Amino acid sequence: MMHQPLSGIKVVDLTRILSGPFCTMLLGDMGADVIKIEGPKEGDPVRKAGAIVNDLSWYFASFNRNKRSMALDLRSEHGKDILRKLIQRSDVLVENFRPGVLAEMGFDEASLEQINPRLIVASINGYGSTGPYADRPTFDFVVQAMSGFMSTNGGVEHPALRSGPPITDLVAGLYAAFGIVCAVRARELTGRGQRVDAGMMTSMLSMFAYLTSDYLATGQLATRTGNDHPIAAPYGMFSASDGEIAVAPSTDEVLSRFLSIIDLAHLLSDERFKTNELRLLHRKELNSLINESLKTDTQTNWINRLNSGGVPCGRVQNVGEALSDPQMIHQEMVLEVDHPSHGLVKMVGFPLKLSETPCSVRFPAPKHGEHTREILEELGMQHIADSNPT
Amino acid sequence: MMHQPLSGIKVVDLTRILSGPFCTMLLGDMGADVIKIEGPKEGDPVRKAGAIVNDLSWYFASFNRNKRSMALDLRSEHGKDILRKLIQRSDVLVENFRPGVLAEMGFDEASLEQINPRLIVASINGYGSTGPYADRPTFDFVVQAMSGFMSTNGGVEHPALRSGPPITDLVAGLYAAFGIVCAVRARELTGRGQRVDAGMMTSMLSMFAYLTSDYLATGQLATRTGNDHPIAAPYGMFSASDGEIAVAPSTDEVLSRFLSIIDLAHLLSDERFKTNELRLLHRKELNSLINESLKTDTQTNWINRLNSGGVPCGRVQNVGEALSDPQMIHQEMVLEVDHPSHGLVKMVGFPLKLSETPCSVRFPAPKHGEHTREILEELGMQHIADSNPT
Repeated sequence: MMHQPLSGIKVVDLTRILSGPFCTMLLGDMGADVIKIEGPKEGDPVRKAGAIVNDLSWYFASFNRNKRSMALDLRSEHGKDILRKLIQRSDVLVENFRPGVLAEMGFDEASLEQINPRLIVASINGYGSTGPYADRPTFDFVVQAMSGFMSTNGGVEHPALRSGPPITDLVAGLYAAFGIVCAVRARELTGRGQRVDAGMMTSMLSMFAYLTSDYLATGQLATRTGNDHPIAAPYGMFSASDGEIAVAPSTDEVLSRFLSIIDLAHLLSDERFKTNELRLLHRKELNSLINESLKTDTQTNWINRLNSGGVPCGRVQNVGEALSDPQMIHQEMVLEVDHPSHGLVKMVGFPLKLSETPCSVRFPAPKHGEHTREILEELGMQHIADSNPT
Repeated sequence: MMHQPLSGIKVVDLTRILSGPFCTMLLGDMGADVIKIEGPKEGDPVRKAGAIVNDLSWYFASFNRNKRSMALDLRSEHGKDILRKLIQRSDVLVENFRPGVLAEMGFDEASLEQINPRLIVASINGYGSTGPYADRPTFDFVVQAMSGFMSTNGGVEHPALRSGPPITDLVAGLYAAFGIVCAVRARELTGRGQRVDAGMMTSMLSMFAYLTSDYLATGQLATRTGNDHPIAAPYGMFSASDGEIAVAPSTDEVLSRFLSIIDLAHLLSDERFKTNELRLLHRKELNSLINESLKTDTQTNWINRLNSGGVPCGRVQNVGEALSDPQMIHQEMVLEVDHPSHGLVKMVGFPLKLSETPCSVRFPAPKHGEHTREILEELGMQHIADSNPT
């Protein structure tokens, strides 16, 4: 049998919508056995969200591959019994309820530990599971606002701006996956499970690089500069003959390469542009000189010439162009997965490439409750499957 | 001894700037022994970047805690010998060179495997380590452009916009950390190391949620809608008496709670607002009715009332406000770390809370080459330390 990194790790997945399902998808892609528990009637709301093709949400399909689905009413004693049995033989439980909801259902920390002291219990939530906001409901947009992220996007002349994707859900989900695998290793050293908490706001706050360290060092907020770099020039969007290119000369060395390639090496001895400080001061003049030079050739030619010369450069692509970019095709970043009775579904592939134990789509996203009977049988509860078919 | 998840894991860290150092910081925070290799003269360029206080870059300090520094000239045979010895006794090597650079230094895949078949070799790069762009230099801004991310930020009336933080560096670094710990577990199953690749563009492309799945399903790009939701209304920024609040009623149930709390429950039976489609069509009217109602009370009161009533709601905070938010204080998201001879340094804390084996700052970011001698001694090469002091 071909091993994957998380082969043999059993995950009970109580999550819904996005942050939790993304986390458990990452675990499933690495080989974990993920059992997605869904309510008996509705299932994960994402089943009805996004574009539906042949009666299937591609949004759901993309984030729930490599999972089995079990329909279970967790408000009934019967459902709780089955969950208890599942927890007994599982390694990880993941939930993205509001803090406290799992305990209200009868699964507080103490009972979970009693059922299975080796269980790793991961919680993904808005603001962390303790503290003044622990009870707040949450949603990506609000966390983008609260975390400071929106305040860093755009220029001073515009209001704070969210980014398009629900990035705080995804960052928290990715953190949780990392935390869970760390806890799996910790268990090998200690023999015991533990709680792993990932908050969306706390996760996002850790993604600001120099914006947070500079603020903490100086008490000063970085100026919002849109597509310009707050403290480096030249940097940003420039104009080739047929479109814009993004250029980021991050060091003096790269800057000097950039100016040489575009025949402006002499600017570095110009009194106006000798230092980064001076270049920031004269950014407009500098940028227009650069644009004049870049207008002599096309976007594609400049992108090739500059990158070959060691200058990071590219163009703004929309999501469709990015997905069909030759490099992304080469990296297999769009997969086609057969979903019986729904046809081929295209979805984003695996950013992590492991040479010996690669991620794979072992099976497509499940139908609602598709594996209820199979899992009951694994639990030795066939009689329930027989008397109570889903 | 207190275990941490990655206790006993030895990491040779050849990375610099941000994506790689963030990855190895995540490993160090989880207990790995990270040896940061720096050039003999300059060290990591981030040592000189960002705000410098008492002769220390807080940017460097924030992303290099829990690491030891060894100064090594990897262009010399002598330096390569020492690296070889280090690799022999290590579990993980992490690099964020351009693909191919490590091989040019004499450490291609085959030699690494020969030196240590159990070694996990992680590479963080711009576009993946093979394919037409493998040789391109990279920088966050260019990846934000190429990946489609910029194209999703802002409204149709504005050009594509980067987000403030270098988010593609951080997302790729976090993915790499997850991939490395997965490879550590895989090694327990297979006995062998492997390559782990994380590209910045591939990583970012996986963070778009329904924006990619809807595009793949329909071939249509989502409309750029700034702070409004492309397919839900009401949603976005609204005006309380003394400032704005972000409200995201994500489901019919939450919407109905929202409108009840602000005394507009009747709008759901208004012909103009009965369905989401109608509300999208009449978004302006709806938003101004909501704003009229919200103007009767303050930001703080609405945020408390709405959250208590189960409606996700918050305000736009800048980075400073986010860092001093009472919830973030409770979650210990700002740490104070003593750096001998540089004083106390504030830095962002740990978003992941592990109850039994918590992340910790075991020691502050190292001085350049601070541990060269100590590590040479661990390698049994004291004679070199003695004859060749750094």
